[in-house]
Amino acid sequence: MKKSLIELKDLARIARGDILKMTTVADSGHPGGSMSSIDMYLSVLNRANLFPDNPYDPDRDRIIVSHGHTSPGYYVALARMGFVNIEDVITGFRHVGSVYEGHVTRGIPGVEWSTGNLGQGLSAGVGMALAAKLTNKNYKVYVFSSDGESAKGQIAEARRTARKENLNNLIVLLDYNDIQISGRARDILYVNIAAEYRAAGWNVIEIDGHDLKQINDALEIAENQKIGPSVIVAKTIIGKGVSFMENTPSYHGKALSLEELDKALKELGLENDVHKYIEKRKQLSLKREENNYPNIELDVEVGEGKNYKKGEKVANRNAFGNAIADLAVLNKDKFPVVAVDCDLKPSVKLEKFEKVNPDGYIQIGIEEHNAATIAGALSISGVLTFFADFGVFGLDEVFNQQRLNDINRTNLKTVVTHCGTDVGEDGKTHHEINYIGIVRNYYHTKLIVPCDANQTDKVVRYAAKTPGNIIIAVGRSNLPVLLDEEGEVFYDENYEFRYGEVDLLRKGEELTILTYGSFTHIAVEASDILRKDGIKISVIGVPSPLCFDIKSFRKYIEGKIVLTLEDHNVNSGLANELSRAMIENSIYPKSFQPLGLKDYAPSGTNKDILKLSGLDVDSLIIKIKDLIVKK
Amino acid sequence: MKKSLIELKDLARIARGDILKMTTVADSGHPGGSMSSIDMYLSVLNRANLFPDNPYDPDRDRIIVSHGHTSPGYYVALARMGFVNIEDVITGFRHVGSVYEGHVTRGIPGVEWSTGNLGQGLSAGVGMALAAKLTNKNYKVYVFSSDGESAKGQIAEARRTARKENLNNLIVLLDYNDIQISGRARDILYVNIAAEYRAAGWNVIEIDGHDLKQINDALEIAENQKIGPSVIVAKTIIGKGVSFMENTPSYHGKALSLEELDKALKELGLENDVHKYIEKRKQLSLKREENNYPNIELDVEVGEGKNYKKGEKVANRNAFGNAIADLAVLNKDKFPVVAVDCDLKPSVKLEKFEKVNPDGYIQIGIEEHNAATIAGALSISGVLTFFADFGVFGLDEVFNQQRLNDINRTNLKTVVTHCGTDVGEDGKTHHEINYIGIVRNYYHTKLIVPCDANQTDKVVRYAAKTPGNIIIAVGRSNLPVLLDEEGEVFYDENYEFRYGEVDLLRKGEELTILTYGSFTHIAVEASDILRKDGIKISVIGVPSPLCFDIKSFRKYIEGKIVLTLEDHNVNSGLANELSRAMIENSIYPKSFQPLGLKDYAPSGTNKDILKLSGLDVDSLIIKIKDLIVKK
Repeated sequence: MKKSLIELKDLARIARGDILKMTTVADSGHPGGSMSSIDMYLSVLNRANLFPDNPYDPDRDRIIVSHGHTSPGYYVALARMGFVNIEDVITGFRHVGSVYEGHVTRGIPGVEWSTGNLGQGLSAGVGMALAAKLTNKNYKVYVFSSDGESAKGQIAEARRTARKENLNNLIVLLDYNDIQISGRARDILYVNIAAEYRAAGWNVIEIDGHDLKQINDALEIAENQKIGPSVIVAKTIIGKGVSFMENTPSYHGKALSLEELDKALKELGLENDVHKYIEKRKQLSLKREENNYPNIELDVEVGEGKNYKKGEKVANRNAFGNAIADLAVLNKDKFPVVAVDCDLKPSVKLEKFEKVNPDGYIQIGIEEHNAATIAGALSISGVLTFFADFGVFGLDEVFNQQRLNDINRTNLKTVVTHCGTDVGEDGKTHHEINYIGIVRNYYHTKLIVPCDANQTDKVVRYAAKTPGNIIIAVGRSNLPVLLDEEGEVFYDENYEFRYGEVDLLRKGEELTILTYGSFTHIAVEASDILRKDGIKISVIGVPSPLCFDIKSFRKYIEGKIVLTLEDHNVNSGLANELSRAMIENSIYPKSFQPLGLKDYAPSGTNKDILKLSGLDVDSLIIKIKDLIVKK
Repeated sequence: MKKSLIELKDLARIARGDILKMTTVADSGHPGGSMSSIDMYLSVLNRANLFPDNPYDPDRDRIIVSHGHTSPGYYVALARMGFVNIEDVITGFRHVGSVYEGHVTRGIPGVEWSTGNLGQGLSAGVGMALAAKLTNKNYKVYVFSSDGESAKGQIAEARRTARKENLNNLIVLLDYNDIQISGRARDILYVNIAAEYRAAGWNVIEIDGHDLKQINDALEIAENQKIGPSVIVAKTIIGKGVSFMENTPSYHGKALSLEELDKALKELGLENDVHKYIEKRKQLSLKREENNYPNIELDVEVGEGKNYKKGEKVANRNAFGNAIADLAVLNKDKFPVVAVDCDLKPSVKLEKFEKVNPDGYIQIGIEEHNAATIAGALSISGVLTFFADFGVFGLDEVFNQQRLNDINRTNLKTVVTHCGTDVGEDGKTHHEINYIGIVRNYYHTKLIVPCDANQTDKVVRYAAKTPGNIIIAVGRSNLPVLLDEEGEVFYDENYEFRYGEVDLLRKGEELTILTYGSFTHIAVEASDILRKDGIKISVIGVPSPLCFDIKSFRKYIEGKIVLTLEDHNVNSGLANELSRAMIENSIYPKSFQPLGLKDYAPSGTNKDILKLSGLDVDSLIIKIKDLIVKK
């Protein structure tokens, strides 16, 4: 049952007390902004199609709190509207044993997106609002934002996509309290927020953010817009409701002392029962259960896969393009299959996909931050989501967006092309030579670097059906279909990709090369040439460079001359991973030689770059012969 | 001698032929946009206070080409205006043996900033224009931009800072050819460019970008603005000057065939001498000299340093705050000392600095991408530049901006605070636990993690006087002044920080711990407690975790039980670096135990987090005793 404005008003008064208690109990947190946003939090929860008895209903309205540090306000609103337990919230806030973390965290009913890094929430909202359109659902998406974060460029990006896609189911409520950590927002960096939204083609409604009637009237208008997204710019007062806190920057991120709390609760007409919570908090244990993430798995049909033939030369990015087009057709009647692109359609090979599945092709333009977050949000909203981009844009440029996707445990399949120095002539800014070094920092994201079209095909299908974030890194150039020692297709129709498994591509006693991706062909070619000279070496393909069991190939390492060969910064790639595995398992080589890029490479053909860097077949053969003679 | 408009017009015709030749010779590159920008490139070079005989004059006007893929146009303009040799440009473009890379690259006369990643150029221009104001110079900064990159959020950020700082010496020339890789810009993502600049308070001038008179008149107006920065939005035609190329998206990134080139040169009334260059290109060697970076070193006075006393408890961020304030005073009369802040003044301890040096305190607001690039540009413009931010914002959020600073070989001192889980209650989005894992990917940036206030003081002064990019990572909490085994100050007045040197903090035979930063105190405390039980272990401080000589402490590793203890993702930190060094030098431990964070930590007090993660003193002591018994 929806509450009346009078009931809401009283609830807001009680909620303000809760906010102050929980931050004092935690001796930490952000009471000021929570109190400027609380009237809007309660109003939206009171209107939204979102209910405590089924908080993960696929048709539910979504709420995102982009200024995630106002978590006290939002948690309290959730509690007072029946989604979570108020005692748990007040007792546990910011305690390691509680799910009520310092910034709102996904996996609590009513929290759709973990935030904390400012500026990403609107993109997440755009992703979810877009998902509603793609899945033919009527739900609305409410995004809470603030004046402070409005300076972030990613918000300007997200605004454009919202307008382009005509997301009239998207409503932003912007808490304009004019206070940031360092003082008045207008002094720190004046952002003409309403003008910027208007210039981007949004519906702009300006209100008093503490007037419940104005809030509700504005929501009524925004919810019924036919054209374009809406923003409600709400003038608010930091610390609203407690006289000595109002308009005072120092209460942005500081809890009240016990004395101040007592004074504030008196002013709010509330009982001071804070000591009860302080005592209860002492009983909390350090361990707690994992957040209860809603199920986001899709029943993906991946088909038989495509078998590229001996003698064919196909770029891995093309194999991706073929596979994703196939996946779109196979799952056509089950759920939307989407590819998010940043103006690189021909390069990342999405043309075929767009042809067979035009609605699933999402052009974001040159806005990678926005694109990465939109893609992450889509991926947990009933849409099989790929994000295709050049490596430097899909990883380096969006390190923190991919990290937040990792924290949010999204289900995104990122395919980064033009990795290594394979985009040679474009030069060092465009050479993605950190893909292992970047993904290594994420705890829950898999990295796969396939080496030919057959493996790429299997890997793309594996990623599609395997829950969680997966990054697939490929190059630009055409590559031969990889053959085994007998000259037959290595990754044939019986091949199944298993994450963490290595591939014994060539077998020999003298020396072992570990490699992955396009450089696999250099290692194999060198091996085949050397074999004619009677020198037999092993080549081990490591398509999952962040996950392998060194014990499974111990005999190729222990006491051997071992080389790593990588299209990657030699300081941050497989050589490090392998060294770590060697040391942790006490499996020691006779000698170890890491080969890779020792500096940014210049602009030039990839062939010239490899030659210059000593990473071409000829250099490798000389190096191997030298090492074998030396031993 | 400045050229007349008639002379310029003819030069533009010749330059168009040069662009087409060089891209055909390279069989690569972006002729279309180069031809839409060339009239503006020549016009600006013809007006600017920038001359071939002294291209690095500190008073010169600065030119930044943000859409760096139009390098053919800009290189040719530089050549035709006498800055570089036209034969070298046409012959060498995009060849590994040539400095004329695919995207404009710093270290060529007239190129102030390497670009390639779109959206960063305007921030670099803002940085340089700000440097002019700070150093009391009159130079102007011209930034070339494009419609395609205007979608990037960082540009919206940079616009605001330009207006806030009233940079009337900043002029943007925006090539609006309405073509991107995937088609018409307006279809990909409509950005109302002129309206957005106007909303941000800029002077906007709209012109025909191929009319030399209009270009020059607009520049005249913009150069004489008293208030605010100016943008010249220039409507242009991609491929301008060759009928079959005009307005054709496919010529964005495709060189002409030899036949097409011949046709185009005929239309331009130019001789086809392309074969001469094709032949010359074959003679180029793969190796070339380093780019000729202008000297950016400053003669920095670092003083005697501050000595924190035994018994004091001081946070490393406070030691930084004290040191930078000291540096500002010491160098007051020599050059500006600047600290770039993103609305975290009290947290990153810049209040004292602002007090003694108000002009040097630069408040960018919550715009980290913009801030990181501005700081990089300032650092090569006669300003001693610090960028202070939380770790997650100064590293994770700006991975690619810091990478471009690394590529540009800037002179930036980044101080990231609140590293590790030391900002405990704010939760996982705010825990910077990748600082080693991130910086490992940069080739030319040093990382230093000091462990107490005395070492921090020395490190900040070392960074100030040492050229190049240096990142200093510190935590939040107060820490004791580190003492030696005799109870005296370890980093005393005789201590000098040397990059790559390790510190033997405790000496014992039974086991060795390697650590850095705030965790040093945990290791030392555990060691001191264990000593009372008769167990002596070694503790080695590794303040430069990306650079150490394992041979210098071989005897503490070889055959020993070795632990790494780090306030960092256990998968991407010192444990990897050390493993690599062990393997490459065949220095093997008896056993190896990496201790660090195995997953994102929850929100809570740092004490609770460490306990939960088994990284507090008690857990460490149990672990050590267990390992020693086992042996």
